[in-house]
Amino acid sequence: MSLEVKIEFDTADVHGALLLRFRQVREQTLALTDGLSDEDMLLQSMPDASPTKWHLAHTSWFFDAFLLQPHLPGYYPLDERYQYLFNSYYEAMGGRHPRPVRGLLSRPSLGEVLAYRDYVDAAMEALLSHASDAVLDKVVIGLHHEMQHQELILTDIKHALAQNDCAFADQPLVSPSGLAEPDMDYSHFKGGVIWVGSDAETDFAFDCEQPSHQVFVQNFSLRNSPVTNGEWLDFITDGGYQRPAHWLSDGWDRCRSEHWQAPLYWHKNQGRWQNQSLFGKMLINPQDPVCHVSYYEADAFARWQGARLPTEFEWEYAARNCAVEGHFSEAKLWHPRGAQLKPSLQQPSGLKQMYGDVWEWTQSSFSAYPGFSSSLGALGEYNGKFMVNQYVLRGGSCVTPQLQMRPSYRNFFYPHQRWQFSGLRLAH
Amino acid sequence: MSLEVKIEFDTADVHGALLLRFRQVREQTLALTDGLSDEDMLLQSMPDASPTKWHLAHTSWFFDAFLLQPHLPGYYPLDERYQYLFNSYYEAMGGRHPRPVRGLLSRPSLGEVLAYRDYVDAAMEALLSHASDAVLDKVVIGLHHEMQHQELILTDIKHALAQNDCAFADQPLVSPSGLAEPDMDYSHFKGGVIWVGSDAETDFAFDCEQPSHQVFVQNFSLRNSPVTNGEWLDFITDGGYQRPAHWLSDGWDRCRSEHWQAPLYWHKNQGRWQNQSLFGKMLINPQDPVCHVSYYEADAFARWQGARLPTEFEWEYAARNCAVEGHFSEAKLWHPRGAQLKPSLQQPSGLKQMYGDVWEWTQSSFSAYPGFSSSLGALGEYNGKFMVNQYVLRGGSCVTPQLQMRPSYRNFFYPHQRWQFSGLRLAH
Amino acid sequence: MSLEVKIEFDTADVHGALLLRFRQVREQTLALTDGLSDEDMLLQSMPDASPTKWHLAHTSWFFDAFLLQPHLPGYYPLDERYQYLFNSYYEAMGGRHPRPVRGLLSRPSLGEVLAYRDYVDAAMEALLSHASDAVLDKVVIGLHHEMQHQELILTDIKHALAQNDCAFADQPLVSPSGLAEPDMDYSHFKGGVIWVGSDAETDFAFDCEQPSHQVFVQNFSLRNSPVTNGEWLDFITDGGYQRPAHWLSDGWDRCRSEHWQAPLYWHKNQGRWQNQSLFGKMLINPQDPVCHVSYYEADAFARWQGARLPTEFEWEYAARNCAVEGHFSEAKLWHPRGAQLKPSLQQPSGLKQMYGDVWEWTQSSFSAYPGFSSSLGALGEYNGKFMVNQYVLRGGSCVTPQLQMRPSYRNFFYPHQRWQFSGLRLAH
Amino acid sequence: MSLEVKIEFDTADVHGALLLRFRQVREQTLALTDGLSDEDMLLQSMPDASPTKWHLAHTSWFFDAFLLQPHLPGYYPLDERYQYLFNSYYEAMGGRHPRPVRGLLSRPSLGEVLAYRDYVDAAMEALLSHASDAVLDKVVIGLHHEMQHQELILTDIKHALAQNDCAFADQPLVSPSGLAEPDMDYSHFKGGVIWVGSDAETDFAFDCEQPSHQVFVQNFSLRNSPVTNGEWLDFITDGGYQRPAHWLSDGWDRCRSEHWQAPLYWHKNQGRWQNQSLFGKMLINPQDPVCHVSYYEADAFARWQGARLPTEFEWEYAARNCAVEGHFSEAKLWHPRGAQLKPSLQQPSGLKQMYGDVWEWTQSSFSAYPGFSSSLGALGEYNGKFMVNQYVLRGGSCVTPQLQMRPSYRNFFYPHQRWQFSGLRLAH
Repeated sequence: MSLEVKIEFDTADVHGALLLRFRQVREQTLALTDGLSDEDMLLQSMPDASPTKWHLAHTSWFFDAFLLQPHLPGYYPLDERYQYLFNSYYEAMGGRHPRPVRGLLSRPSLGEVLAYRDYVDAAMEALLSHASDAVLDKVVIGLHHEMQHQELILTDIKHALAQNDCAFADQPLVSPSGLAEPDMDYSHFKGGVIWVGSDAETDFAFDCEQPSHQVFVQNFSLRNSPVTNGEWLDFITDGGYQRPAHWLSDGWDRCRSEHWQAPLYWHKNQGRWQNQSLFGKMLINPQDPVCHVSYYEADAFARWQGARLPTEFEWEYAARNCAVEGHFSEAKLWHPRGAQLKPSLQQPSGLKQMYGDVWEWTQSSFSAYPGFSSSLGALGEYNGKFMVNQYVLRGGSCVTPQLQMRPSYRNFFYPHQRWQFSGLRLAH
Repeated sequence: MSLEVKIEFDTADVHGALLLRFRQVREQTLALTDGLSDEDMLLQSMPDASPTKWHLAHTSWFFDAFLLQPHLPGYYPLDERYQYLFNSYYEAMGGRHPRPVRGLLSRPSLGEVLAYRDYVDAAMEALLSHASDAVLDKVVIGLHHEMQHQELILTDIKHALAQNDCAFADQPLVSPSGLAEPDMDYSHFKGGVIWVGSDAETDFAFDCEQPSHQVFVQNFSLRNSPVTNGEWLDFITDGGYQRPAHWLSDGWDRCRSEHWQAPLYWHKNQGRWQNQSLFGKMLINPQDPVCHVSYYEADAFARWQGARLPTEFEWEYAARNCAVEGHFSEAKLWHPRGAQLKPSLQQPSGLKQMYGDVWEWTQSSFSAYPGFSSSLGALGEYNGKFMVNQYVLRGGSCVTPQLQMRPSYRNFFYPHQRWQFSGLRLAH
Repeated sequence: MSLEVKIEFDTADVHGALLLRFRQVREQTLALTDGLSDEDMLLQSMPDASPTKWHLAHTSWFFDAFLLQPHLPGYYPLDERYQYLFNSYYEAMGGRHPRPVRGLLSRPSLGEVLAYRDYVDAAMEALLSHASDAVLDKVVIGLHHEMQHQELILTDIKHALAQNDCAFADQPLVSPSGLAEPDMDYSHFKGGVIWVGSDAETDFAFDCEQPSHQVFVQNFSLRNSPVTNGEWLDFITDGGYQRPAHWLSDGWDRCRSEHWQAPLYWHKNQGRWQNQSLFGKMLINPQDPVCHVSYYEADAFARWQGARLPTEFEWEYAARNCAVEGHFSEAKLWHPRGAQLKPSLQQPSGLKQMYGDVWEWTQSSFSAYPGFSSSLGALGEYNGKFMVNQYVLRGGSCVTPQLQMRPSYRNFFYPHQRWQFSGLRLAH
Repeated sequence: MSLEVKIEFDTADVHGALLLRFRQVREQTLALTDGLSDEDMLLQSMPDASPTKWHLAHTSWFFDAFLLQPHLPGYYPLDERYQYLFNSYYEAMGGRHPRPVRGLLSRPSLGEVLAYRDYVDAAMEALLSHASDAVLDKVVIGLHHEMQHQELILTDIKHALAQNDCAFADQPLVSPSGLAEPDMDYSHFKGGVIWVGSDAETDFAFDCEQPSHQVFVQNFSLRNSPVTNGEWLDFITDGGYQRPAHWLSDGWDRCRSEHWQAPLYWHKNQGRWQNQSLFGKMLINPQDPVCHVSYYEADAFARWQGARLPTEFEWEYAARNCAVEGHFSEAKLWHPRGAQLKPSLQQPSGLKQMYGDVWEWTQSSFSAYPGFSSSLGALGEYNGKFMVNQYVLRGGSCVTPQLQMRPSYRNFFYPHQRWQFSGLRLAH
């Protein structure tokens, strides 16, 4: 199936293999827009989010600016103005259209943006046929970059459509039951000096995952399943959103100023809690993993339970022996679902759903690994400049391309943000 | 030509005549959207402005809610949710979609909104064939309401497209010269007790123009032509935007906090001032009336000149004998142009361009005329509730339907607002 | 009694008479600070208000900057830095300490500010002994300016102390009953062309009251007594603060965003409404005039009653034959009180309490009279630059020096402001 | 000398020894207010800071609420309202006066607050004569709490007085030269598993410093001296505040929105850079450690140098063998000063000024140590609820009581805050 892309190289034909992957990733991006109108794709519902059309253009600009212009002789950009419109945040690449008003770019039209994609794709085919290893490495980064935007396309359009009370049918959908009960037990791990991170020798890894290095972890325990909607309903019922004792001070301030009463997208209708999927309103399924909670809420929930969030290294250590199986973007559910996946042979613990369905907040601030460096010029702005005020999430979600997942992958968001598919797993 | 609509009734066939006018006005609204894409029509660039698509829907909602639902037996709304989405501010009509996020309504689509218009139009044809006089009066209000939104469609889309540096070609357009030099002389008027306002007996007038009543005006003088771009360049050059002495205190605060250096849409490119039209960037033509200035700027300019803004009654008194001729929306310039129109026979003064091209700020706060009352139920929210903090503009602009113009017409905006086609005429 | 200052000149000794008045006004300012500590006098509870100490310094700076430095040979300022610290808003006088942080001026100390007052007073004695008529005119402005600040001292310190739940004893004071029932009848006035304003030939008037001129008023009726607390309680009980139908659109927005439920300083304690006086919390007395309401509230109340606010000219016309008697600052109540004052011989109408107790909002926007000019240099910034967005109040209050009151006096504030002693009188 | 307090217990008379320490700390707090007027002590220049008077009252409230009310039989509070006014953030202790308006508490007066201190002190003498060990432990926390507020008194009043251009003499002071050149060399440390934190068995430590635990550190190098003003001038000259390449993304946003051009309190006067001390303006001394820089600036500087900030554990590991000697609050300089302190015998590295003069930003987010717990009821709100979004500083400053310093001490502030005495030391 075309979605099961793997960027693994036949050493006999590196160029051909990468070209194939390039086509697959680019096609997959467009496939995500099925069912969206020109108007839908222009929506920007908050400064944190971007229009679908902008994602389509920006991912093309990435290849345009970092690959084609410097490396393809004779190449010239389709429209000089796109350099300004579709740069996201690369200061080294010159000025850019202000992020909060990306939704005002009715021009170029969707059709023109699709033509821009075609133009870039055609040039990339030419480049890929004879590129050097250094160039190929940047192409791989570009594909991983594009997969990150595939996730954002789904995340952002969900937020945009949710602002419109009339975007979907009034009748809520019913989530299918999980395959099995969530597992409330804990698996235990013995501490010591461990290796974390990646050296990206055999597989791709972003700069922020590198270098691999030693850390010391204490003995710890990790819950086998993520926290569920059912448990979250208990938290709500027990006054979780009304009592400051559970909350970080900044979290409590945010909870009050934004009037949080439940996870994002939850609302009560005629006495029944509903949330939102990309296909319409849904009745809450208690067995599904809770989703769209902020770090502040995750932390408060953990304290209420007498537990805590894991560190990112505890998570990574535990995940190293878990199979990467769960609901990813390719499953086209785009909504987390409770599941008891088969433990793989190498998985002695009882951990389930470490990957997929919901990103799991860790208590770790996003920071540089020892010896971290950005050596790629403007591409060096990729991760390093965000290493403050954000917290690491691990494991991917139901809108993440499965190909992206690996134990060392670090996602990061601000602790108040809730529009990502973010949940949690408890630790002791 | 179809644009020269006149709502004047053949007493022999009142219903037929109004039906004809209804069709003309509704068609004219659609005609304004020529050249705009689905995406363009979704743009909302600030809370004060609305998307074109929203204007198309709201003007239909007006007939739906105030005419069809109460007065057409058997009528039912096309979609109940439109009551919520397309109510502008009528508290008596229930809840409504928040104004600042009208731009997030990708659904219903433009196609659905056009179908809604058709649905309403068909029902209105039925209603108009046999409506009572009271109902016909409300239809006339609805048509005037729609003409106000015709002006807003042009005003708002201009603002939206101007936020996108790449919406138009880079090359500025050249404004054709004015037909003649602006006339800097003043015409003089003798004061006394005069009648102002309208009793709307023979012609339509909004409630805020009524009743006609007596006021006392002093002797006064009015400049023959509106203030021009050329004069405004002198103001800029003389430090008009740098010296607080000319400015109202609130105006100076606004000038600094929003970094005003020139009228809205003006910017300097390679040493030459440009502004913006609905068809692209334009080189400033010194003979054209200055446009897109706030009340604060108009007042500061007048003080700098040793003059003042006229009161709305001085303006109305002077305008009573002027022909309603100038550049209106029907001329499809949609940009003010300098002109020396022929004085009509009844016009003993030298006043020129009192109507059309640019709205003229007056120093009069928008307030109730003596004996003002709103007797139309929810329609009573039309003007009365805005009678504070806003200032009256007179005379219409190049985006106003000519049919709306009459000496008693009162437009009103906040003194800091600049996105309307607003200019000024000096008085002594 | 020293408080009954009158600035009337013995033509035989103009200098001596004005000197006497100067001393009386300056002493009266200090007398208002009895009972306030150094710390109290430093409080600034919002940008609109100023610390008592700042008022003491600024009123001295006025004489320093406008009288002594230009007109007293050999005079030099006590401290050059005071020019910067104590300028209020006179752009022509150079820079100034930002208004919102006047409360951070612990230095100079209160003692130093009082020494500054003494220094200025001593120099003014020298100047007054031989000043020209033009200089004397500016001294009179300075004294009226100082009386305005006397009112602000009381108004601002009331607001500051009210922010501190522990500033006063917990036990509420009981307001003495009014001397008589409020008079709910209306007096009727016949319209026509009338004269309003002042030419300041025989008595002092600020520039904004000049010149006297003709206006046309319709027939109108004015309620004999101001609106009372008891009537306001009815408004609250009837949902006045919950129903948008009564409110101006801007007013309703403000009502909701600031969560208005009652006039400023009102709060309900154990089921009983209390408000605040300068001497402590008080039980609401239904017969007292309602106070500390915004223009928006006054307007909403009037609409709820089926009435309206008077114009400032209606008020002035009606007040011309009323005696200036009521509770003013000199009575040291500093809280409005219901009263039925004896009609004077020249008062054919039944109007009561037109002066004193509470300022009365009018529906008139504060604007320039025909022919208004500011001809006093920097002093020209006194009133003219505030002629936008504010509404006129008439009649003075219980914290206004009685000497300031005259039929033509125009006070003005923004329609959302409530910390002034502002009430209302209904009109038809 | 009375300032050299040591909280070390003579086991023979624990109660007497602690009483002596109690008196010393409480007296020292008052000693810091020498030279401040009643008005100065009321100043609150921003929500982050508090008035001196409030600090005096709050530190007394701490003993009142946590020691006397629960533990001293027959004790009753002096004024019930102080529970509300002087609670800082303890949610478990009920409501509290809003932090941003502490500066409006002119009442109770300074005199009343000092009487409150006396009242609490007298009761504490009674309590201390016979308290249990558990109570004594809480007293020790109260004394360390008070010492933290001693530092804040100086930090906050510096900020408040700096808002007033006229608080000090115009003439800048000259900083005495440092005792020696700063040492630009690095000391090198070998990594491995180390112990950090404290178990507070022999000495006091806050909950957030506990428990002691193992961490793994890499090999690292630390600069011998803190970064100096002279180096910072080079950073400014080289465009450090103009080039985004050095900055974290959040830091660059803050730099632009707050118009940073230099550290807080720096300004250029007639071509020469000055900063601010508690005794007046000072000329910049290039050899002094740079101070009042945010985390964002510290991080940008380090990147510009090709270096980085140390982790808190690197710092702690390196500091364990350093003598706690430097300029602390007791030296009454209250301004950082360059110094080459004698290496102690146990200090094989060349590190200088690890303690005192300026707090040193680390790259470590403030978070819980493994096994962290708050077991003290309301006192548990002390540190744990702030464990998000803040960064750790180490080593104390010229306004820190020397007694507080120990290798494990963790201070923490938001990365944008600059009003603390915060500097940096580079690492590799």
